[in-house]
Amino acid sequence: MSDADKREIHETVLRYCRAVDRLDYAGIRAVYADDGVDHHTGFSGTADEFVAWLEKGLPHLDGTMHLVGNHLSEVDGDQAVAETYGTAVHWGTPADLPAINFTSGFRYVDHFVRTPAGWRIRERFAVREWTRNDAGRITAPTGDGPENGLRGRRDADDPFELLRQRVLG
Amino acid sequence: MSDADKREIHETVLRYCRAVDRLDYAGIRAVYADDGVDHHTGFSGTADEFVAWLEKGLPHLDGTMHLVGNHLSEVDGDQAVAETYGTAVHWGTPADLPAINFTSGFRYVDHFVRTPAGWRIRERFAVREWTRNDAGRITAPTGDGPENGLRGRRDADDPFELLRQRVLG
Amino acid sequence: MSDADKREIHETVLRYCRAVDRLDYAGIRAVYADDGVDHHTGFSGTADEFVAWLEKGLPHLDGTMHLVGNHLSEVDGDQAVAETYGTAVHWGTPADLPAINFTSGFRYVDHFVRTPAGWRIRERFAVREWTRNDAGRITAPTGDGPENGLRGRRDADDPFELLRQRVLG
Repeated sequence: MSDADKREIHETVLRYCRAVDRLDYAGIRAVYADDGVDHHTGFSGTADEFVAWLEKGLPHLDGTMHLVGNHLSEVDGDQAVAETYGTAVHWGTPADLPAINFTSGFRYVDHFVRTPAGWRIRERFAVREWTRNDAGRITAPTGDGPENGLRGRRDADDPFELLRQRVLG
Repeated sequence: MSDADKREIHETVLRYCRAVDRLDYAGIRAVYADDGVDHHTGFSGTADEFVAWLEKGLPHLDGTMHLVGNHLSEVDGDQAVAETYGTAVHWGTPADLPAINFTSGFRYVDHFVRTPAGWRIRERFAVREWTRNDAGRITAPTGDGPENGLRGRRDADDPFELLRQRVLG
Repeated sequence: MSDADKREIHETVLRYCRAVDRLDYAGIRAVYADDGVDHHTGFSGTADEFVAWLEKGLPHLDGTMHLVGNHLSEVDGDQAVAETYGTAVHWGTPADLPAINFTSGFRYVDHFVRTPAGWRIRERFAVREWTRNDAGRITAPTGDGPENGLRGRRDADDPFELLRQRVLG
């Protein structure tokens, strides 16, 4: 076990969150092993099937934010397990519809494997902890500009991607 | 001061959160020094007394989730201080009862000491920042299965524990 | 790129959060480069101007808590970009006034530069994701003492500062 392994495992979880929130489906697929499997509320199947399922569902929302905190992993050779706490805020239009305006508390319970390309998720359990109804209370931002600041986007024009290209080329 | 010290201190805070949320009372006790002390809302006393207090109170809830983020520590020889930001979601039945359905924002302000067994909490202040009433809006998950995914549990059959045993033996 | 760079960049983001929440204006200024720039909802200008803007606005609230999670950075020589997910809880009196009782979901999109004094923010975009109205549901804590525990403070008597002085001198 090395610290570098643990760091890479942690960053892989964070890259998953970024990919989901930006609708970067190739980025989502990339965190799973070739034979990766995912178990989510409403879904259980291969990583390929999971991505297809997300491609159908995520566009019905105006946005998602998967904020994660606590992350603990244990590495044993080429196998690892990791637990990550998170909350996922989902918002959509109309803003008073509970099915698309809610926050869920979850834990990612992950079996990681070391592959030639790096640590990948072999099997993920998205464990449900609680769900909170945010209908009528959560709003997506509208309007960019000096007085409003920037909004997050779900495409290649998101502010982080633009900054990365400008700074790192 | 070494990075390894800081990492261990951080992981100790995370292990506390895991232990509380899983009702692992021995795990809670283990993060404190033998002479550890805790100050919480509604409690102030030794680590042993704190665990006894939790054993009485936590079962009245259906679940808790202590999600922590910001963590900064400073190490000086065998002493350290650490500050950790977190939110604790509490949910229970009936779901419209405010006393058991609320979220609190807190900071753990910790005095850590190096012991032969590793870094331990000598004194913890759970500093209150805000409390939000979630009555009638938060729901615990019900029903496992392929269409629902897995729920978190507060015992040895929690999905993370089962995965750890399967993968790491 | 080194792990030490990434760690310092991460800690700089955390020190910003601490400084804002404690009304430590010098601490806020210190995370920016001399020629630092900030873009926030309702503000765009130099770091000096940003601090002046906060000095006017923050005292109207009873408190803020900037809890951050996901943090990913990329370093290239003396330049870096970092993305940090967070939620900012704002509370005030009266508790039913939406303008001062809300939670925002954001990402800090930061351009960091290495300076002689360490990594500093050259340009920050506080990207808006969502806003949630907490009017009438969030309460600030009142009353310290053994039965209540400690409240957070926005001055030099905050419990973390007192502990740090006691332990580290």
